[in-house]
Amino acid sequence: MSKYVIGIDFGTLSGRALLMDAKSGKEIAESTLEYAHGVMDVSLPSGKKLPPNYALQHPADYLEVLQSTVHNVVKASGVNPADIVGFGVDFTSCTLIPVDENMQPLCFKEKYKDEPHAYVKLWKHHGAQPEADEITALAKARNEKWLPYFGGRISSEWVLPKILEVLHDTPDIYQEAYRFMEAGEWMTYLLCGNEVHNPNLAGFKNLWTKEYGFPSNDYFVALDPRLSGIMGTKLGDRVGKMSDVAGKMTEQGASLTGLLVGTAISTPIIDAHSAIPALNMIHDGDMTMTIGTSSGYLLNTKENISVDGICATVGDGVVDGLYVHEAGQSAVGDIFAWFTNNCIPESYEKEAQEKGVSIHKLLREKAKMLRPGESGLVALDWHNGNRSILDNGDLSGLILGLTLQTRPEEIYRALIESVAFGTKVIFGRFEECGAVIKNVCAAGGIAQKDEMMMQIYADVLNRPIRIAGTKQACARGAALMATVAAGCYSDLNEACDALALPDYCVYYPNEENREAYEKLFAEYKTLHDYFGTGVNRVMERLTEMKRQI
Amino acid sequence: MSKYVIGIDFGTLSGRALLMDAKSGKEIAESTLEYAHGVMDVSLPSGKKLPPNYALQHPADYLEVLQSTVHNVVKASGVNPADIVGFGVDFTSCTLIPVDENMQPLCFKEKYKDEPHAYVKLWKHHGAQPEADEITALAKARNEKWLPYFGGRISSEWVLPKILEVLHDTPDIYQEAYRFMEAGEWMTYLLCGNEVHNPNLAGFKNLWTKEYGFPSNDYFVALDPRLSGIMGTKLGDRVGKMSDVAGKMTEQGASLTGLLVGTAISTPIIDAHSAIPALNMIHDGDMTMTIGTSSGYLLNTKENISVDGICATVGDGVVDGLYVHEAGQSAVGDIFAWFTNNCIPESYEKEAQEKGVSIHKLLREKAKMLRPGESGLVALDWHNGNRSILDNGDLSGLILGLTLQTRPEEIYRALIESVAFGTKVIFGRFEECGAVIKNVCAAGGIAQKDEMMMQIYADVLNRPIRIAGTKQACARGAALMATVAAGCYSDLNEACDALALPDYCVYYPNEENREAYEKLFAEYKTLHDYFGTGVNRVMERLTEMKRQI
Repeated sequence: MSKYVIGIDFGTLSGRALLMDAKSGKEIAESTLEYAHGVMDVSLPSGKKLPPNYALQHPADYLEVLQSTVHNVVKASGVNPADIVGFGVDFTSCTLIPVDENMQPLCFKEKYKDEPHAYVKLWKHHGAQPEADEITALAKARNEKWLPYFGGRISSEWVLPKILEVLHDTPDIYQEAYRFMEAGEWMTYLLCGNEVHNPNLAGFKNLWTKEYGFPSNDYFVALDPRLSGIMGTKLGDRVGKMSDVAGKMTEQGASLTGLLVGTAISTPIIDAHSAIPALNMIHDGDMTMTIGTSSGYLLNTKENISVDGICATVGDGVVDGLYVHEAGQSAVGDIFAWFTNNCIPESYEKEAQEKGVSIHKLLREKAKMLRPGESGLVALDWHNGNRSILDNGDLSGLILGLTLQTRPEEIYRALIESVAFGTKVIFGRFEECGAVIKNVCAAGGIAQKDEMMMQIYADVLNRPIRIAGTKQACARGAALMATVAAGCYSDLNEACDALALPDYCVYYPNEENREAYEKLFAEYKTLHDYFGTGVNRVMERLTEMKRQI
Repeated sequence: MSKYVIGIDFGTLSGRALLMDAKSGKEIAESTLEYAHGVMDVSLPSGKKLPPNYALQHPADYLEVLQSTVHNVVKASGVNPADIVGFGVDFTSCTLIPVDENMQPLCFKEKYKDEPHAYVKLWKHHGAQPEADEITALAKARNEKWLPYFGGRISSEWVLPKILEVLHDTPDIYQEAYRFMEAGEWMTYLLCGNEVHNPNLAGFKNLWTKEYGFPSNDYFVALDPRLSGIMGTKLGDRVGKMSDVAGKMTEQGASLTGLLVGTAISTPIIDAHSAIPALNMIHDGDMTMTIGTSSGYLLNTKENISVDGICATVGDGVVDGLYVHEAGQSAVGDIFAWFTNNCIPESYEKEAQEKGVSIHKLLREKAKMLRPGESGLVALDWHNGNRSILDNGDLSGLILGLTLQTRPEEIYRALIESVAFGTKVIFGRFEECGAVIKNVCAAGGIAQKDEMMMQIYADVLNRPIRIAGTKQACARGAALMATVAAGCYSDLNEACDALALPDYCVYYPNEENREAYEKLFAEYKTLHDYFGTGVNRVMERLTEMKRQI
């Protein structure tokens, strides 16, 4: 008798459930639902306007996704709920919900419906930059031992800046909040009735390290005396392991999902991170690339190495016994979308229509004919700032080498190359710090779709790039965690080995292109250092000038 | 009884005649004809392919323009040819024609019809770059006193590189050529039967200086022994004055033009330079700007100052008693044309169509709403290299400050600003060298049409910019020279005073914009120096890489 698991992936704009055979790994059914309120960055449901840089969500949308998509996959598969033995959740993060003592979101209360700080702060809410700066500055001043684990700088997207923003702006909401919960932890609580915290969420988003635990209460008090005692009260302080079972499905969970009471629930994981088990990238030296609107890079190392300029390093962060390091590029697909929306002439649009292809496909066809260096262009891929390794949102994009003969496909290719060069800078930083990158596998929308781009990655990085065999890496990772929670396998390693998928394909570097790209990368790196490391702060000054207007 | 003159302007793609009242300066009639062969940069009329960088013309086209347009203006005006007392020619330069002992172009001979070097080399023929480099290197090595008059470097567009190219590639054509004539001088010879050479053509294009005359025969011999004795044989060596009368219309001239034998013919002048008399910019400190596909800057000074990085300085070059200095930008309107042809989205094209305006007008309307610095963009205007003050064709364009929110009109405005910043660099170099720029007047297609751009020039340069009251500055200048040759005025100064036109308008700097542009210019200048003066030769390396592919 086959057994099944469900993984549910809560993304930025929608959630999707995947029902998987726990033994064969076959993906049986999937269902996706967009969030009714999407990302609230202009106004609340009441119509109340939001300040700039805000990105909120409505937790009712998560409940709707849970109920609808799980119902759909069970129905579509025809599987008996009694044969569904495990359930796993991955979620965007840090996506933070203030809740009352009944674990109900504060924004469900009538009195708070016009109060932005009572809503969910989505990962990309950027209202807390001053707080993040303050947190970083204090940690530097106190020489906090945990700071190097976070690339030397705290992101405004993480737990503490978001909480401090609430405390600064609306102290009463801060008081009223019984807990501030990661949405993934809240969802898990709804299903099994247990509050669980793990190295993945606590480490990547809440300053926990394997070596030092959470920051000391002294540090919180120095930040703001009102934060005294926050760990263990408004924030959970007991961090388990990724291999722990979160609990068993409660009656409430069962009524929400239609699954059986007692179904095993795994510990929640950050959405992009759940690609690590899904792709079987759980060994020392494995580098998982997620390439979409932006890019994420997750590298496992056996040693506890410190890598300056990346986002975070967490011991046992996904796989017990390994450190996982996260780096990222703040715009990838977004840059190409900007380019095609703003810089493509009418004649190309017509040509694409006549050929019946998308404008991206037309550009790729034209750009594919170019040889590296043929356009004379080099670009910097900082249209949305630089996350790794410069960690500076005020940097901006650059195109150099334009002539009166420059054509759109040349710029398009230069932008693609610039993103690959940005990746090479990140890889180089890891290697400078002693990491050995043994194995690279890419997931995400672009990886399976854009052959030319992936070949450029292989040529620029001068290493084979494997392409993941699943389009549902996140939900599959959550499902895989559920197989372990359900006891189908003895541990994550056994599950990953058993359920590993063959690659979709592998791109190998082309020797001739590699040589040309070495030269072009040297130019990129010189510009990267000149504009990015403070030699010429023109980009930051222009951004500041723009801000003042 | 009114008297009239005709000025004829031989441009790059067409020629135009202007019939003007010699006393009132009223422009009575004009006529334009495109050259039948245009610019031959792909193949000869026989179909024979040309190498890259070639730009040839067919002298038969000039004869056709002469006959047709002069006939047209006489007919359209109803003026009796007996009342047309003077005739003047301006021509692109250096546009070089090899002729036989009868002053017939070699390309008219059947045996040379497939021989590129027998045709007219248009000013923008760039086949002679190696020769130009050799000429410069030898002049530097010999410490030739005339070299500083030419910005320290000889352009491949000038007479000597073009002749040396013929000598290197086809020694028999070099031998066969009785003279190499500037097209303006050839045209003048056709009309009056005299070979005239003047400081304007000899100085700006053939290494003549008021102080030292032409280079010594030693120099030519050192360059190539076969050049020994070239001055006075294949090239004219007697340089007159700009105020000289070239001669009187011969029977041949009369039969070509339909004008009377004996009509006074003035000395020929370079097309852009003829704006100087046309705009009455004949005084110390007058700066004439010609803004079109590219830009030219002509400044008069009383003192013989040396200005590094400009094109040339010539004593008595247009006005007796003044030095005239020429500088230029190698692309201006060409950059905007490139941008609108390659980088404007379909939605903007549709909007322009719906509003019934050109895409340039739509972009200007949108760009006009932006404040300086609002886009966060800075560009370098080197899409066709940099003529002044860097004199480097291998430099290329740059756009910096791009974000995911950057819109086309922001880039468009940044490109306009970059061109104005490039002008400011040129003005700054003149001032560093001791020149005082007292009065700026702009002519050319863009000057009367693009209010936004001219206002940006005024704001960036922080000085009033007068706009010329004529759209035919070149042909009018030639006509004005003709009034002096015909004796209607005692000298050029009297003619210019009498025929000066009121300004079309004047743009004055806006104080608030000026301040913002000072900041942006400082950024431009830092980038200009970083990429342009050898700190980072990335543009040159990329151009070389492109060349090798």
